[in-house]
Amino acid sequence: MNGAQALIRTLVDHGVDTCFTNPGTSEMHFVAALDDVPAMHGVLALFEGVATGAADGYARLTGRPAATLLHLGPGLGNGLANLHNARRAHSPVLNIVGDHAISHRPYDAQLQSDIATVARNVSTFVHSSESTAELSSDALAALGAAIGPPGSVATLIVPADVSWTDGGVAIPGTGAADLPSGTGGTAPDEGVLATAAAALRSGEPAAIMIGGRACTGKALDTMADIAAATGARLLAETFPARLERGAGRPQVERLGYLAEFATMQLEGIAHLVLVDARSPVSFFAYPGKPSDLVPDGCAVHRVAAAGDDLDAAVAGLAALTEVPEGVAPRQAAVVPEAPTGTLTSQTLSQALGALLPEGAIVSDEGNTAGIFAAGATAGAPPHDWLTLTGGAIGQGLPVALGAAVGAPGRRVVSLEADGSALYTMQAWWTMAREGLDVTTVLLNNHSYAVLNMELDRVGAETPGPRAREMLDLRRPTIDFVHLAKGLGLHAARAETAEEFTDELARALATPGPSVVEAIVPSLM
Amino acid sequence: MNGAQALIRTLVDHGVDTCFTNPGTSEMHFVAALDDVPAMHGVLALFEGVATGAADGYARLTGRPAATLLHLGPGLGNGLANLHNARRAHSPVLNIVGDHAISHRPYDAQLQSDIATVARNVSTFVHSSESTAELSSDALAALGAAIGPPGSVATLIVPADVSWTDGGVAIPGTGAADLPSGTGGTAPDEGVLATAAAALRSGEPAAIMIGGRACTGKALDTMADIAAATGARLLAETFPARLERGAGRPQVERLGYLAEFATMQLEGIAHLVLVDARSPVSFFAYPGKPSDLVPDGCAVHRVAAAGDDLDAAVAGLAALTEVPEGVAPRQAAVVPEAPTGTLTSQTLSQALGALLPEGAIVSDEGNTAGIFAAGATAGAPPHDWLTLTGGAIGQGLPVALGAAVGAPGRRVVSLEADGSALYTMQAWWTMAREGLDVTTVLLNNHSYAVLNMELDRVGAETPGPRAREMLDLRRPTIDFVHLAKGLGLHAARAETAEEFTDELARALATPGPSVVEAIVPSLM
Repeated sequence: MNGAQALIRTLVDHGVDTCFTNPGTSEMHFVAALDDVPAMHGVLALFEGVATGAADGYARLTGRPAATLLHLGPGLGNGLANLHNARRAHSPVLNIVGDHAISHRPYDAQLQSDIATVARNVSTFVHSSESTAELSSDALAALGAAIGPPGSVATLIVPADVSWTDGGVAIPGTGAADLPSGTGGTAPDEGVLATAAAALRSGEPAAIMIGGRACTGKALDTMADIAAATGARLLAETFPARLERGAGRPQVERLGYLAEFATMQLEGIAHLVLVDARSPVSFFAYPGKPSDLVPDGCAVHRVAAAGDDLDAAVAGLAALTEVPEGVAPRQAAVVPEAPTGTLTSQTLSQALGALLPEGAIVSDEGNTAGIFAAGATAGAPPHDWLTLTGGAIGQGLPVALGAAVGAPGRRVVSLEADGSALYTMQAWWTMAREGLDVTTVLLNNHSYAVLNMELDRVGAETPGPRAREMLDLRRPTIDFVHLAKGLGLHAARAETAEEFTDELARALATPGPSVVEAIVPSLM
Repeated sequence: MNGAQALIRTLVDHGVDTCFTNPGTSEMHFVAALDDVPAMHGVLALFEGVATGAADGYARLTGRPAATLLHLGPGLGNGLANLHNARRAHSPVLNIVGDHAISHRPYDAQLQSDIATVARNVSTFVHSSESTAELSSDALAALGAAIGPPGSVATLIVPADVSWTDGGVAIPGTGAADLPSGTGGTAPDEGVLATAAAALRSGEPAAIMIGGRACTGKALDTMADIAAATGARLLAETFPARLERGAGRPQVERLGYLAEFATMQLEGIAHLVLVDARSPVSFFAYPGKPSDLVPDGCAVHRVAAAGDDLDAAVAGLAALTEVPEGVAPRQAAVVPEAPTGTLTSQTLSQALGALLPEGAIVSDEGNTAGIFAAGATAGAPPHDWLTLTGGAIGQGLPVALGAAVGAPGRRVVSLEADGSALYTMQAWWTMAREGLDVTTVLLNNHSYAVLNMELDRVGAETPGPRAREMLDLRRPTIDFVHLAKGLGLHAARAETAEEFTDELARALATPGPSVVEAIVPSLM
């Protein structure tokens, strides 16, 4: 057994059975070993940013890491933006980056570069495995780092000769049961819990901000109960990795992207209780505006951070506040009428709200054109909402792909803005190849609209035509129906609300992936 | 004048008048300042790898750096693969990477990451400019590092508040004349020159390997004269940044990509004279095969490295070998007949040889499907040949774009393999936007064919169907005519030699960009 064969066996035996790949020569032994270990599902991507974003989406749905297979420093570089988003999502991801053979390194061949340096930008664990015999144990160390808590990106660099040399040692495991899925972690600080509980029971205006793992499952329910019982405002962080929402679930208001909105949401709060969420800061800085969004004089109580034992913290807070289960109001089932007339950001969101199926997973990179989508689907059947955690655009389609691989049988809706789609549209091809039930709603406003807004907000003096031109995608017009067809998908364009509703209904009812391009006016 | 305005004025005044951009919020003041300095040509890309590859192509043709404008760490990450290629090409490139405002950094907002760490992988110069007053001088320091020699990638990190704050100081210059274009450098070692000259005159079997700046202009001519007069074999490095070739120019044989071929080319050589070329090594390591391709017992004479004064070294060697000018044989004008019948790698190359116009610039990322192109065009009218210097695929289309921006009036032919095109096809949109005369020949063999070959060469035991599947692009078929049309270009498909010849002739005769998709059988 060579190193690559032992590595794949070890991964599969420890619950990592999916690998998003974009390999090159230095990874050919890993590729060859896929035939030895059929339990490893290799999913080919045409671009590394697709592979890394898919691993993020997979982790958000399964709680388990997928592996990526990347080609040296440049391959890792291409995957970096979506690894940045995965890092911010605390998604466990295990990168396997091929390197030149150890014996080849002194020659500085064309593709050589400092892989570890690139990896450090996004990884909590970076290690080059220099011995075939130790490759599997190195992989388990990386896997442990990835799982956390907090979940994180771990990068294992595998020289080609470490892969191809005989003497690999597979380390037995018991499959997915070995993966603690981000549970456990640092025990809560009893003092902080007590202070937070007292603050919540004080009657002073308070808000609870949930993030990370607190946006799903029992933690979400309990925090909603605590908020309801204590009168605290329940907020979610601006860009949660995965928020469970819809009819029958707690109602959670997300903190606004725009600092102006977020400031209004937090105004007058005397206590802010953070539950696996970071203290709110402005996404960007703007001349003369504060970065820190916590109101002056507001006390911040961090009852659980990303690496902490969330379940214990939430249970502890519930006990100290003496809140019974099930007191939080639940979202009513409210489904909008199918829209008619002009296709706009509003009407397309209305159609989405009317049609979103139960159990859907929405990968939301709709940006400005998608801003009404969350509101219109609030009362839709229960579903998951995945957002742009790190702000590096080009996340939406790959995360949708990975979520679909991780959650077969559920419909994925990828709400995707035109500018963002163009970074990683290669994801469409893999959706077609794998026959995944992903419906992309491509919001085409022919613009980097968010930047038009930002150009005004940063206080740049009277933007001129050359500046505006840098944000305009109209010359030439981009045709996403052609692009999707080129990558092997069914695609259709909608220019009215009725057309959009019809096409979306058809796409959602059809197995496999397709794209509906919605032509909408820019809001900015 | 704010920092961004001063920065752009300073750049333009020192000869950097082209900026390939993919900006975000932190770069909005730079974008706004484009209206203040119309001499700066902002060229928008839809993906950062397009911007960085275009800067490389621009530098290869002009000898001058372009700037790139990238959005924080993730933007730089997306541009990294083509910066790796630029680094290997010794192309001068000046990255301007926006960062959060200095005041915003303590808050670790979503898009924050360690930009400098990522930049170090590819840059000889990395600096974060922390003061508006010093931004322009920091930019000139970066520019000096980029220009070299050797030409290199320099990365200037510009926090948003350094851009937006008033108090910028533009530093006057005299335009392009300020740019030494990679001339000068370390004086040649007289001892090495004398030894190399003696070796070349000894009558022992010798080869001269040229690379970098020695593949163009007077250095190329002189080295060809020296090789002809001394009986040395004249070789170019495997992947030159820019090789001048065609009818009337010296005939130069490139070292083979496959180590087996390169070994044959170097067999029996007692002396190897390196002129701005690195000592030949295998591209990858293979089990049981050597990395170093220099034959045993062969003496290596490095008369000029990348940072050396090439002109002085070449002139010195010519003087010491007493070789008169103009003795090298020149390539005869040989243009193949237009092909008929089946479209294959051979017949499409024949068509290219028949039609390549004088002054053409070929960006060659044809990989396996393009292997006959160089041979078929050897006797075509004089042209330039740009290759995949760093081996990070996705270079070809962006380099073609940048070359076209840098050399208006010349026809660029982008020989592009299907697998490679899919990394950076967004370049097509910018070609259309800028109305550039780039003809893409898209070689579609529905495969990562080079990896099929490598899978066999690395000695992986009997690749199975799951491994082969990882290299197959047939499920689903990718339609590049659709993709190109989606990005706003005219495109046509050719399935016979006659169709290809017709479409190529039409594309070459038509102003602006277009794509000819050539369906060819895989050679591997």
